[in-house]
Amino acid sequence: MKELRIDHEREERCGFPEVVFAPGKTVEQIVAAASEIYAHSGRVLVTRATPKDFEAVRAQLQGACYHEQARIISVGCAAPQHPAGLIVVAAAGTADMPIAEEAAVTAEAHGACVQRLYDIGIAGVHRALEHVDELRAARVIIAVAGMEGALPSLIAGLVSIPVIAVPTSIGYGAHLEGLAPLLTMLNSCAGGIGVVNIDNGFGAAELACRINDPSWL
Amino acid sequence: MKELRIDHEREERCGFPEVVFAPGKTVEQIVAAASEIYAHSGRVLVTRATPKDFEAVRAQLQGACYHEQARIISVGCAAPQHPAGLIVVAAAGTADMPIAEEAAVTAEAHGACVQRLYDIGIAGVHRALEHVDELRAARVIIAVAGMEGALPSLIAGLVSIPVIAVPTSIGYGAHLEGLAPLLTMLNSCAGGIGVVNIDNGFGAAELACRINDPSWL
Amino acid sequence: MKELRIDHEREERCGFPEVVFAPGKTVEQIVAAASEIYAHSGRVLVTRATPKDFEAVRAQLQGACYHEQARIISVGCAAPQHPAGLIVVAAAGTADMPIAEEAAVTAEAHGACVQRLYDIGIAGVHRALEHVDELRAARVIIAVAGMEGALPSLIAGLVSIPVIAVPTSIGYGAHLEGLAPLLTMLNSCAGGIGVVNIDNGFGAAELACRINDPSWL
Amino acid sequence: MKELRIDHEREERCGFPEVVFAPGKTVEQIVAAASEIYAHSGRVLVTRATPKDFEAVRAQLQGACYHEQARIISVGCAAPQHPAGLIVVAAAGTADMPIAEEAAVTAEAHGACVQRLYDIGIAGVHRALEHVDELRAARVIIAVAGMEGALPSLIAGLVSIPVIAVPTSIGYGAHLEGLAPLLTMLNSCAGGIGVVNIDNGFGAAELACRINDPSWL
Amino acid sequence: MKELRIDHEREERCGFPEVVFAPGKTVEQIVAAASEIYAHSGRVLVTRATPKDFEAVRAQLQGACYHEQARIISVGCAAPQHPAGLIVVAAAGTADMPIAEEAAVTAEAHGACVQRLYDIGIAGVHRALEHVDELRAARVIIAVAGMEGALPSLIAGLVSIPVIAVPTSIGYGAHLEGLAPLLTMLNSCAGGIGVVNIDNGFGAAELACRINDPSWL
Amino acid sequence: MKELRIDHEREERCGFPEVVFAPGKTVEQIVAAASEIYAHSGRVLVTRATPKDFEAVRAQLQGACYHEQARIISVGCAAPQHPAGLIVVAAAGTADMPIAEEAAVTAEAHGACVQRLYDIGIAGVHRALEHVDELRAARVIIAVAGMEGALPSLIAGLVSIPVIAVPTSIGYGAHLEGLAPLLTMLNSCAGGIGVVNIDNGFGAAELACRINDPSWL
Amino acid sequence: MKELRIDHEREERCGFPEVVFAPGKTVEQIVAAASEIYAHSGRVLVTRATPKDFEAVRAQLQGACYHEQARIISVGCAAPQHPAGLIVVAAAGTADMPIAEEAAVTAEAHGACVQRLYDIGIAGVHRALEHVDELRAARVIIAVAGMEGALPSLIAGLVSIPVIAVPTSIGYGAHLEGLAPLLTMLNSCAGGIGVVNIDNGFGAAELACRINDPSWL
Amino acid sequence: MKELRIDHEREERCGFPEVVFAPGKTVEQIVAAASEIYAHSGRVLVTRATPKDFEAVRAQLQGACYHEQARIISVGCAAPQHPAGLIVVAAAGTADMPIAEEAAVTAEAHGACVQRLYDIGIAGVHRALEHVDELRAARVIIAVAGMEGALPSLIAGLVSIPVIAVPTSIGYGAHLEGLAPLLTMLNSCAGGIGVVNIDNGFGAAELACRINDPSWL
Repeated sequence: MKELRIDHEREERCGFPEVVFAPGKTVEQIVAAASEIYAHSGRVLVTRATPKDFEAVRAQLQGACYHEQARIISVGCAAPQHPAGLIVVAAAGTADMPIAEEAAVTAEAHGACVQRLYDIGIAGVHRALEHVDELRAARVIIAVAGMEGALPSLIAGLVSIPVIAVPTSIGYGAHLEGLAPLLTMLNSCAGGIGVVNIDNGFGAAELACRINDPSWL
Repeated sequence: MKELRIDHEREERCGFPEVVFAPGKTVEQIVAAASEIYAHSGRVLVTRATPKDFEAVRAQLQGACYHEQARIISVGCAAPQHPAGLIVVAAAGTADMPIAEEAAVTAEAHGACVQRLYDIGIAGVHRALEHVDELRAARVIIAVAGMEGALPSLIAGLVSIPVIAVPTSIGYGAHLEGLAPLLTMLNSCAGGIGVVNIDNGFGAAELACRINDPSWL
Repeated sequence: MKELRIDHEREERCGFPEVVFAPGKTVEQIVAAASEIYAHSGRVLVTRATPKDFEAVRAQLQGACYHEQARIISVGCAAPQHPAGLIVVAAAGTADMPIAEEAAVTAEAHGACVQRLYDIGIAGVHRALEHVDELRAARVIIAVAGMEGALPSLIAGLVSIPVIAVPTSIGYGAHLEGLAPLLTMLNSCAGGIGVVNIDNGFGAAELACRINDPSWL
Repeated sequence: MKELRIDHEREERCGFPEVVFAPGKTVEQIVAAASEIYAHSGRVLVTRATPKDFEAVRAQLQGACYHEQARIISVGCAAPQHPAGLIVVAAAGTADMPIAEEAAVTAEAHGACVQRLYDIGIAGVHRALEHVDELRAARVIIAVAGMEGALPSLIAGLVSIPVIAVPTSIGYGAHLEGLAPLLTMLNSCAGGIGVVNIDNGFGAAELACRINDPSWL
Repeated sequence: MKELRIDHEREERCGFPEVVFAPGKTVEQIVAAASEIYAHSGRVLVTRATPKDFEAVRAQLQGACYHEQARIISVGCAAPQHPAGLIVVAAAGTADMPIAEEAAVTAEAHGACVQRLYDIGIAGVHRALEHVDELRAARVIIAVAGMEGALPSLIAGLVSIPVIAVPTSIGYGAHLEGLAPLLTMLNSCAGGIGVVNIDNGFGAAELACRINDPSWL
Repeated sequence: MKELRIDHEREERCGFPEVVFAPGKTVEQIVAAASEIYAHSGRVLVTRATPKDFEAVRAQLQGACYHEQARIISVGCAAPQHPAGLIVVAAAGTADMPIAEEAAVTAEAHGACVQRLYDIGIAGVHRALEHVDELRAARVIIAVAGMEGALPSLIAGLVSIPVIAVPTSIGYGAHLEGLAPLLTMLNSCAGGIGVVNIDNGFGAAELACRINDPSWL
Repeated sequence: MKELRIDHEREERCGFPEVVFAPGKTVEQIVAAASEIYAHSGRVLVTRATPKDFEAVRAQLQGACYHEQARIISVGCAAPQHPAGLIVVAAAGTADMPIAEEAAVTAEAHGACVQRLYDIGIAGVHRALEHVDELRAARVIIAVAGMEGALPSLIAGLVSIPVIAVPTSIGYGAHLEGLAPLLTMLNSCAGGIGVVNIDNGFGAAELACRINDPSWL
Repeated sequence: MKELRIDHEREERCGFPEVVFAPGKTVEQIVAAASEIYAHSGRVLVTRATPKDFEAVRAQLQGACYHEQARIISVGCAAPQHPAGLIVVAAAGTADMPIAEEAAVTAEAHGACVQRLYDIGIAGVHRALEHVDELRAARVIIAVAGMEGALPSLIAGLVSIPVIAVPTSIGYGAHLEGLAPLLTMLNSCAGGIGVVNIDNGFGAAELACRINDPSWL
């Protein structure tokens, strides 16, 4: 088998060490990549990991823990960034939780303080409105939604901080496996929204941490 | 040229006489069709009509009037249906008005009482919430929106009456000429929504009038 | 695991209590949500439920029953709404029945009287024509069709009442998992049609019940 | 400019001489191609021709005539094929006529007997049913429809002869410039339908003439 | 369970009795439908049938036979139509055979004489050219192709008889599960081609039999 | 004509006053909206404005100026936000400049310091690499690219700050009017990227200003 | 206006100096870019240029010539590369000539020997077969085709040299402005084909010249 | 079962014997085809083969070997082509390796010298830049990339030799199973790129070998 080639300078260039995205890799490739990154950086994340992946990583790397709903393996992550602002992770429906948790766990693994606001979708708009003060107190909001994906538009119209929109693949039929909420979010008439790929909770967290970087305070 | 073949029994079967959809027809075809329907039913609508179409129709049919923003020519329309409920036409943005007016004028032409609530899109959610009582007082609501098209979801979560969702082609880029709000509306997590084609204000009004048919009172 | 957040006011606002859509939720989430809604409203529906979901719900909630073809679990549903009009559920082909039943069972669960007219697709147009009187006697018609999805157009041209069009994912190849009949229904040249998402029998029933609301009689 | 290269053997191989499709060609290319085909075969068709194209062709080829609605220039066409069956060209709406005429004129130019049945779309199904005997008397039917494109399905369920389905670009919004009726026709639950490209009245006629070839009688 | 509703008049109207399309139906629905059609017409086809479906049908209907590659169950089919022309079924690649066989077996079940010409795709054009005489001797050709789907264009340019084009889902990547060859066939620059849905070998045979109807001889 | 309904509280809620998006509005609607916002907030932007729009606005509002390449009319904008970080606007090609300028002018109109780095697309990667220090010195980068849209990926791999990706409609063929670079940006393997709609330079600037809000320093 | 930034090192790195793609640039930008490249490299191409662009360039750069059908302005191009192989440019139809000429003129401008074989599309397969010897004598073939785009498959099955496939936007309806032949070419069952963007004759020529580089002889 | 029809002349015409593409074929068809090609040409490749396919082939053909990551079975392949240039196979990420290996193993099976450069994607651009000398030393480069697919653009801007771009299906969400990188590659602003189908490592190798044909040296 071909050898791995980890981009170790990424942490220095970009603030995050390289992360292991599990799908499409063999268990052996996952363990090898995670071990090499951990050896170099003292911490590593494996995203979209299965319980089976976790068993293999844990056998190699002590202290690995598995965030089941988020499907993330983390080993030896960053200390909290005390003076940084709050990251709110908001989600529209129960079924969007795995992606919301992927975002929340990733952000926490990079030292952020995270507040979760789940089940506040647009079909019961009072639920989001009850949390306006918490939304406005954040440094950045990650808004996760499947179905029609209108939550980021709703939130961005209520606050003056950046909103990261994460469409999810939760839906059916004309949902087109997440393309419908993706389009909704790209066409928002509210300002201040940046969109990431469908189900990309990890990417949303990485962007949120770049925005919330305490070195700018 | 081939002769016209008007479906005169449509009024009896479906409640509405046949309507002339102007695009793709010559001015001569439009005038001929409008005249024949008017002769048979005593009233006629021409939709998506240009001012030039109107000049030609008015030369033939006295009393024709042109609803400029709605792009509709109406001649001799129905008397108000006194005991029927109210149809609310709500629109998200200024640019959605032509389609909203197409719906409103069509419904009025068929005898309905219409209340317009415009510029109440989701980016400033308080605007729609200020009108909750008016929304709840209707028999049926037509909700018109371009961009991300979230207005019908917002409204349907606030009321217990039917909501007819009309996506518009107002937008750009990933809007795909109206496909984005169409998908939004089809994927709504709020219940009680029926969707019509992009920019189809006329069809929304016809459905609203079938729902609001006073013979059911 | 994160706690649930049920929108209990939905029944008051919208006439229907919140419903549990099973796909993408764990069995535990389904039981918890169903139990909480039942405790608050005295009735609950779980849609797209598997037999395994049913076993888990029944263990918790006595009186749960499973509508196999409709894939719906219902517990303690509404009393019949005696003076309301009839809802006809029409379906084009045998394979469309599960979605048609989802619509019919949902409507019945909310107290409606439902008449089923199945296997009346356009390839044998006489079959629908034989039922014109029954179609015309309804307050609202739900027309369910896969393949080319032409049934709603056919029916809407025969009646003066609202028609709710439900495309199904029954087909193959250029059917695009239901997009073909969805487009057919959105482009209908017949008036009075509102379209719901592919396979969304539940949503069609909710819209039909809002139209058929006996409080308007 | 590069010289033309006409496929003169096509008439011998395929029964039809090569035809000039005007769009994307200069007027000079059109005239040169038409002249060369005429010189070789004694007849020629130019399809999708503008009045300006016609002026240029007529200046070169005496006896050219222009079928305005069909947008076809014909010069010196085939004698009627007396013993052959009838080709019925059916069209759903007034706006579909240009494509229906393209089919009808092309078939006539190749010697066929054509009967036109226009404005018999599915929204008023009685209109098609009134013509069942004429439809059944044909050797082959060309069914032209825009909007939802259900006419071929309706007809194919009524007859035992081949039906050639021609979707047109007449529609708007989710019509996708003809893709909606194209998909409808490809997914027909009625048998015996062959589909051609959007607006391809010419191709439908060529297929109809191959089916109706009198040498098989 | 809801009762079946077979369209028994279809044979009289359209020449073919109704056929059972197996996918999306339960084994019980398949057996019930096949039995009822057989009882009425003395013959029946079940398409896209699994071996398990066959076991169930054979237990009910003696004389059922299973065409494995074509995935068709046939019981008691039509006598050969002696004076009719020949139907050639041509296929581009080995992997297209199941669809080609579906077409061939269906045509034979309706009494046609069928000649198979397989593995004659465009990448080795001499293979098709070797069979020009057989292709020209047919009354109608069914051309089946996946990948780029160019076979129907090649054949239609060589003959003067109708060509029915069947795209298959054989391919990967930008093949889009058959949309690529479907588009190829719809855009053919050769005339005389009618296209059916992806993998619709059955529909191609039904159209071929309508064209090849011996009552027109 | 219907009256305007400006969302004046938006400035308070979201930091930006409402902006006038010109396309789809009449000149009269543009002038009325701009005047009302200016009267309330003391500043206003009109985006995608034509020179003709500018003439009309300038006649009403003194001090209006027109940013030709950016197609923006600005009147009385914000004072510079002195302590805030730098916003870099990077663009891949000459033809992407109008969108890049829309972003730059909008950000400047809201008081930001902007540095432009144009013509640094991936086909000559040394051009971007020469500017690594300037890229790393920013608080946030707006990366604008048409064609294959790879610039944001390249930049995000070089820096640890947020990157806002703006796909443009510059391209042809399989570019799909900007969908190709939009997909590129959503699928970036580099982290820290938020994407906005095709050609949405304005939205990118609004998000950049929310990220760069000096009140967080 | 922002200043230009030409990538002068491209010629050294890639063999070709940078080329000016005219669409989306102002006439001033075109002239400025062409002049700067010419000053540096002694030759320049402007592609997709209008006659008006040519007038402006000729006023600035003596010796500019305009290849009308190819829509290319060339100034001071390369000397012929005597020992290199032949590039054959094959085209399916008359309407594909502008793209074929764009490829041929570009290749000639870079010193290649080009042979043109036009109007040899698949509908008359004998036309291509007559040229098999010329096709086999080339070093590389550029195959240009609109409609169904099958020409590259046909050719690649006849030769052992590389084939560059260029889909064109010539077609209508389900042609999707060139996507249909693009998909055809990507799915070819013949080997040895590399595909470029729709209508990208220039890119095909650049690839052909890299393949045909005489420094490898 | 129908008999096979191998195109044995392909080797003579195109340089490669026919290859067996395993998916969609039965194990029996695979073994039969491989055996027949081997008997005729003395070598054969089976692509996309499973271990189970390999077992069956090995039982029949001695000396068969299985390239696991490339999923290729090879038997008795070509001798190295000594004087030919080098083929570089570059890949962006670890998950792209199976396709890169399919290309590399195929090229080696046809006698080429191959150098592999893996894990050099654009998110860490220094990784590709470190290999500029090796890239420039090749005769042709195969660049394999999933996700956003920008690697071929990056490489083509650094070299003057042909680049064959292979998009892979590695990605999720808006990746659309490889369409995103496919579009990226087709829209590259760098010249000299030919694109093959998604995951088509085999086709890339066949094109590379045609370019690298030593008979042209």
